[in-house]
Amino acid sequence: MGRIAVTDGISEEAKSLLEKSGHEVVVKFYSMDELLDGALANFDAVIVRSATKITAEVISASKPGISVIGRAGVGVDNIDLQAAGKAGISVVNAPRASTQSVVELTIGHLLSSVRKVPKSDRSLRDGQWAKKAMKGSELSGKTLGLVGFGRIAQGVGAIAQVLGMTVHAFDPYLPPKVAKSQNTRLHKSVEDLFSNCTHISIHCNLTEETHHLVNYEMINKMPGKSPDGVKCGNHIVNCARGGIVNEADVLKALNDESLTTAALDVFEVEPVRADYELCQHPNFHGTPHIGAATIEAQRRVGTDISKNVMSVLKGKKCDYIVNKKYL
Amino acid sequence: MGRIAVTDGISEEAKSLLEKSGHEVVVKFYSMDELLDGALANFDAVIVRSATKITAEVISASKPGISVIGRAGVGVDNIDLQAAGKAGISVVNAPRASTQSVVELTIGHLLSSVRKVPKSDRSLRDGQWAKKAMKGSELSGKTLGLVGFGRIAQGVGAIAQVLGMTVHAFDPYLPPKVAKSQNTRLHKSVEDLFSNCTHISIHCNLTEETHHLVNYEMINKMPGKSPDGVKCGNHIVNCARGGIVNEADVLKALNDESLTTAALDVFEVEPVRADYELCQHPNFHGTPHIGAATIEAQRRVGTDISKNVMSVLKGKKCDYIVNKKYL
Repeated sequence: MGRIAVTDGISEEAKSLLEKSGHEVVVKFYSMDELLDGALANFDAVIVRSATKITAEVISASKPGISVIGRAGVGVDNIDLQAAGKAGISVVNAPRASTQSVVELTIGHLLSSVRKVPKSDRSLRDGQWAKKAMKGSELSGKTLGLVGFGRIAQGVGAIAQVLGMTVHAFDPYLPPKVAKSQNTRLHKSVEDLFSNCTHISIHCNLTEETHHLVNYEMINKMPGKSPDGVKCGNHIVNCARGGIVNEADVLKALNDESLTTAALDVFEVEPVRADYELCQHPNFHGTPHIGAATIEAQRRVGTDISKNVMSVLKGKKCDYIVNKKYL
Repeated sequence: MGRIAVTDGISEEAKSLLEKSGHEVVVKFYSMDELLDGALANFDAVIVRSATKITAEVISASKPGISVIGRAGVGVDNIDLQAAGKAGISVVNAPRASTQSVVELTIGHLLSSVRKVPKSDRSLRDGQWAKKAMKGSELSGKTLGLVGFGRIAQGVGAIAQVLGMTVHAFDPYLPPKVAKSQNTRLHKSVEDLFSNCTHISIHCNLTEETHHLVNYEMINKMPGKSPDGVKCGNHIVNCARGGIVNEADVLKALNDESLTTAALDVFEVEPVRADYELCQHPNFHGTPHIGAATIEAQRRVGTDISKNVMSVLKGKKCDYIVNKKYL
């Protein structure tokens, strides 16, 4: 059985899962100097989160050791996938661990937006009883537009339907039958999606194609009125990745009321700077990138990545190798 | 066709519904002096919300006019039901109009609590990026205890189940088969309910029996841990009526952390006073009694009460007469 370095922490459940399977687990953070000095050379695998940077140089310095790098999470920006592949190292991630947490946060942000929950709370704390000003609208009867229709969006769509929403989606990479099976109307362009939906939620990756996809022009295509004539306004939620939403445009649209509310968990620049104007807008509310920040997601990400790393170590099939094309 | 006084406003849709049916509608607020002076004597019906008080004296002064009083909403505390009944006047309400709105607000408060949405938003506005402090928990896998299992609680339970919660309820007035049909575990005592649930939501009327039903002792029966061992803490939401929850006890329980979060839409004293300590607690968030404060609920309450009033005027059967026993 192998030696596994865990450099950015892991849940207790995951550590004992690895140990019960016969692996030696060393939980320790290494500095870049230590990594370049071969700190990982005596390990068979390393499990990281986002703090440890596995560059091409770190990979060179880790020979003859590690044969698998596990990323406890989704994004692998901190790992040089190509260099790893060339060195014969599989990189695996754990993309499903946070699905339910992100789905729930998204629904929470949608309801918080239309019912002005954070705004009401601020108002109560300011000593107001602003019942009339806090009048909102129901999600029921409205159209929800999902940008991207992967596993998180599908989870959001399923709950939105139970709440009485009609679900639309735009996802150029999705087989149309998937949307059909979820009773979701798939649009051929993102413009079409925005023109049909009073509520938009983002569930795609950040790529050149999706950078600033949500901008002032797109927001101004939103109808502001539901199919049954309720003037519910336009609402945008982003719990996916910062940069997909053009935040300067969101602020402009909130100011001229073409956008009624905006709720963001992710931002173009994180951490958000203390005096960031958007975060002070009365019709904005936000959370500090906490989509996966739950007890359950963190527990699950540890056990998921441990299972994936062990599968590769044992030479078993693993569905979560993200650098196959470089191997 | 009759003359109908609308004293506390009504939606445009409702007004035109009444007029299209051939009724004359006078939308006008009358002072208590005007009411006692017989302002309603020349009307066949009156539709009120909560501002107009229909006392026994107002009923005497309204003879020989009104034969039906409509309350656009649920609560009829502002109408003397017995005096109306003795005078042969039916009192009708519109209890279903706000169901969906209250259901959605309840789910919004539950998600806002466990994911610290208002707390995160306050923190962002204060210039913090408190990602670690905002770690929360999922609703999925937890037990939701519903105090009262009427139409709103049943709606909340249905959505909670889709979110992955197990639903429990306490309702001594409910036929057990109703709970069974909703896949909900009915408890014989409220103590049992609290002992089994990490999340409690209130959906009963305020009566002598339910006054301060949620107190320090009851909160301390809550397990703080889900069946699968997640230390999610204890959470209480009240979107029903103020006074069911003992707010001094909630503050005490938040302070000693036997309660993790509290979210209230209704309070013992409304409006809440500006310096109310509970509203300033970091793990509290609130809204100013906005359960029914949506465009849709207000539209629906107008059309529902108009239909009910017209049914009685036409001598048709109406399921929403609330003073039958006095008629």
